[in-house]
Amino acid sequence: MIDLILVQIFILVSLAMIAAIICNLAKIPSVVGEILIGIAISNVAIGGVTLFSTLQLGDVDSSEVLAVLSELGIIFLLFTAGLMTPFHELKKVGIIAFLAACGGVLVSVTLGYFAMLSLGFSSMQSLFLGVALGSTSVGISARVMEQLGVLTTTEARVIIGAAIIDDVIGLILLAIISGIAGGGDINIIDTAVVGILAVAFVLVSMFICTLITRFRHTDYCKGVVAKPRKKTLLSPLPFALIICFGLSALATSLSLAAIIGAFLAGMMFAEFRDIWPSEEKFNSLKEFLVPFFFLYIGINVDLSSLGAGNAWMIAPILIIIAVVGKVVGCGLGAWKLGKKSATIVGIGMIPRGEVTIIIAALGLSINVLTDAQYGSLVAVVIVIAVLAPFLVSMAFKRKDKFGMKPMKFKE
Amino acid sequence: MIDLILVQIFILVSLAMIAAIICNLAKIPSVVGEILIGIAISNVAIGGVTLFSTLQLGDVDSSEVLAVLSELGIIFLLFTAGLMTPFHELKKVGIIAFLAACGGVLVSVTLGYFAMLSLGFSSMQSLFLGVALGSTSVGISARVMEQLGVLTTTEARVIIGAAIIDDVIGLILLAIISGIAGGGDINIIDTAVVGILAVAFVLVSMFICTLITRFRHTDYCKGVVAKPRKKTLLSPLPFALIICFGLSALATSLSLAAIIGAFLAGMMFAEFRDIWPSEEKFNSLKEFLVPFFFLYIGINVDLSSLGAGNAWMIAPILIIIAVVGKVVGCGLGAWKLGKKSATIVGIGMIPRGEVTIIIAALGLSINVLTDAQYGSLVAVVIVIAVLAPFLVSMAFKRKDKFGMKPMKFKE
Repeated sequence: MIDLILVQIFILVSLAMIAAIICNLAKIPSVVGEILIGIAISNVAIGGVTLFSTLQLGDVDSSEVLAVLSELGIIFLLFTAGLMTPFHELKKVGIIAFLAACGGVLVSVTLGYFAMLSLGFSSMQSLFLGVALGSTSVGISARVMEQLGVLTTTEARVIIGAAIIDDVIGLILLAIISGIAGGGDINIIDTAVVGILAVAFVLVSMFICTLITRFRHTDYCKGVVAKPRKKTLLSPLPFALIICFGLSALATSLSLAAIIGAFLAGMMFAEFRDIWPSEEKFNSLKEFLVPFFFLYIGINVDLSSLGAGNAWMIAPILIIIAVVGKVVGCGLGAWKLGKKSATIVGIGMIPRGEVTIIIAALGLSINVLTDAQYGSLVAVVIVIAVLAPFLVSMAFKRKDKFGMKPMKFKE
Repeated sequence: MIDLILVQIFILVSLAMIAAIICNLAKIPSVVGEILIGIAISNVAIGGVTLFSTLQLGDVDSSEVLAVLSELGIIFLLFTAGLMTPFHELKKVGIIAFLAACGGVLVSVTLGYFAMLSLGFSSMQSLFLGVALGSTSVGISARVMEQLGVLTTTEARVIIGAAIIDDVIGLILLAIISGIAGGGDINIIDTAVVGILAVAFVLVSMFICTLITRFRHTDYCKGVVAKPRKKTLLSPLPFALIICFGLSALATSLSLAAIIGAFLAGMMFAEFRDIWPSEEKFNSLKEFLVPFFFLYIGINVDLSSLGAGNAWMIAPILIIIAVVGKVVGCGLGAWKLGKKSATIVGIGMIPRGEVTIIIAALGLSINVLTDAQYGSLVAVVIVIAVLAPFLVSMAFKRKDKFGMKPMKFKE
């Protein structure tokens, strides 16, 4: 069993490296190459057999292992994004991030709903399609911003802050729409509980961050904790890992994305970056594991499901709505940053992910959505996954090119 | 599924950290704590339920995930051990390592065989018990030596070199004994093929190491490869990972331990340590993953299997043979290093592992070994796993204490 998984890891690491080299030469974000290679190995069949199915030799189902490796990768990525974002810096952009998140969800869902109604779909179908387009998935943007080295810019902080709020909103929308799907009636209490718990988790984490920040600047901390020692019992890494996994697990148990917990955990360590330099330590963990996440996104794409019905008919419309909804909605929310920065925030919020797929699958399972509509939503996620890295990368580079250095807060 | 695995990883990382802190305070090797905690969580039942079975909530079988994480840990550990061992240094101790490996296997198997015969067991039973005691498992020693910072001493190099040869011998013994178990006749050709392939793999890898070493000292390499560049296409880590996983997978496909491949891969990079400093990069990968290996050793221990028959009767005898066999056998083989160093080598070769368990299980499955004999062999592996780290650590420290600095090759 182990033997075969080692072979798979070898092949996947090799493919990721090839993708990275090609993307590097072509000057495109390596995420694109990793996703495309993932799609290729699970969809391009030679003699009816794909490379990925060949890898799944015999009875070995390694998809669970792959899922875990990819999840670890994205958790470590968001943890280090958190390390780059001290809480007092995030607080400064809090209102803008909140407005951007609300704007993005509102415009995407409304636009989607009415566009679909106007195409003649039922109001229920239109609602599902609209809500499915509502939630951002921040992994792709986080990776591109990390590779561009812009994680400490205002725009990046607004994007990540908004993505957290977006995830909470998405969770509440999911609860509501599950309620509608379930019995026609929304169970207001359940929905409220889900929402309150999620909000409480984020707020309590942020409160802890405030306490940590205050503690960091007390004389006690400066005198005792920050004092360089000859011998420490342990390196900071295990401690960071525990907090990171603890909050990630807690976030998932509240139906939030694990990466929200990882980001909040990273933020708690951000104040201690000077005395516990842990982001260096996470670099090789990321370098090894992050490519699995994007390969896995690609591997999970089933291109044949797109062929069902006339998916190609509405997919382009949905893609345009998905892009315009976030650029306009988040852009308006972040307008205070200026036109160029607001556009960057909007573009950074374009990527869609699990929530879209979950709502699409839910809609299909209760016969609200047709196969074609389901396929179209999957197509939105795929096309945007390949498109978004370019857009995000271009948006940041363009701003840079025009002589406007990314704004940096004083650290 | 992911949620539960994140909870498990959180708990396991936390437990490993607690074990490390306690062991650090008690000044014992942290490996001991990790193994004992592993044993505890899978064997100590409260109300009939162990912590580990509680973690395996619902239908989630995460043992595969844990197995992979632990395997990744030990692979990275042996890769960095390889990085510390340039081939031209290993070559210097090659003969001694070879003699130590042969001596250790020979004395352990012979001693085991005749001791068991004298207890009145059949010659077949005695053969299985003897052969099961033959093979070293180097993971525990490697970890202790790494934490003591003695991986570059002559003794450590002899131990690891001998462990590689030991694994090849163990493989051949396993083939022979499977042949005996299978039909009574040994299939000489199959056994020869298994042995030749394993030897060829090690020799070809070492030949490549020689070529790399030569290339490293050519003017071309000094002028082109070693020249510092402003921009490289990729960091050395992905490249190192590919070679590491490639050789590990190749080793397992030849029935050798994956760590043999990982060590050889590390050795190939050892010559380039100055220009591609990759061991730093592996540090956090190790720090995160290695504890899983030793926790997993403990988790796989089923203490209840020891109760079968009168396992406790012969277990102490087998443990003594296992210890004496390696200390005397390997010690004699490494006699040229002097008495103290030879003893260290012998002690470093004491740990037993998978091969012992595999042969024990084989013997049980074909009704050669009784439940009690099988349980005794399992007990040998467990007791030695807890005992060996102390012995290895003490042996190296004792030498140090008596004013004899570990011999170091000039680097």
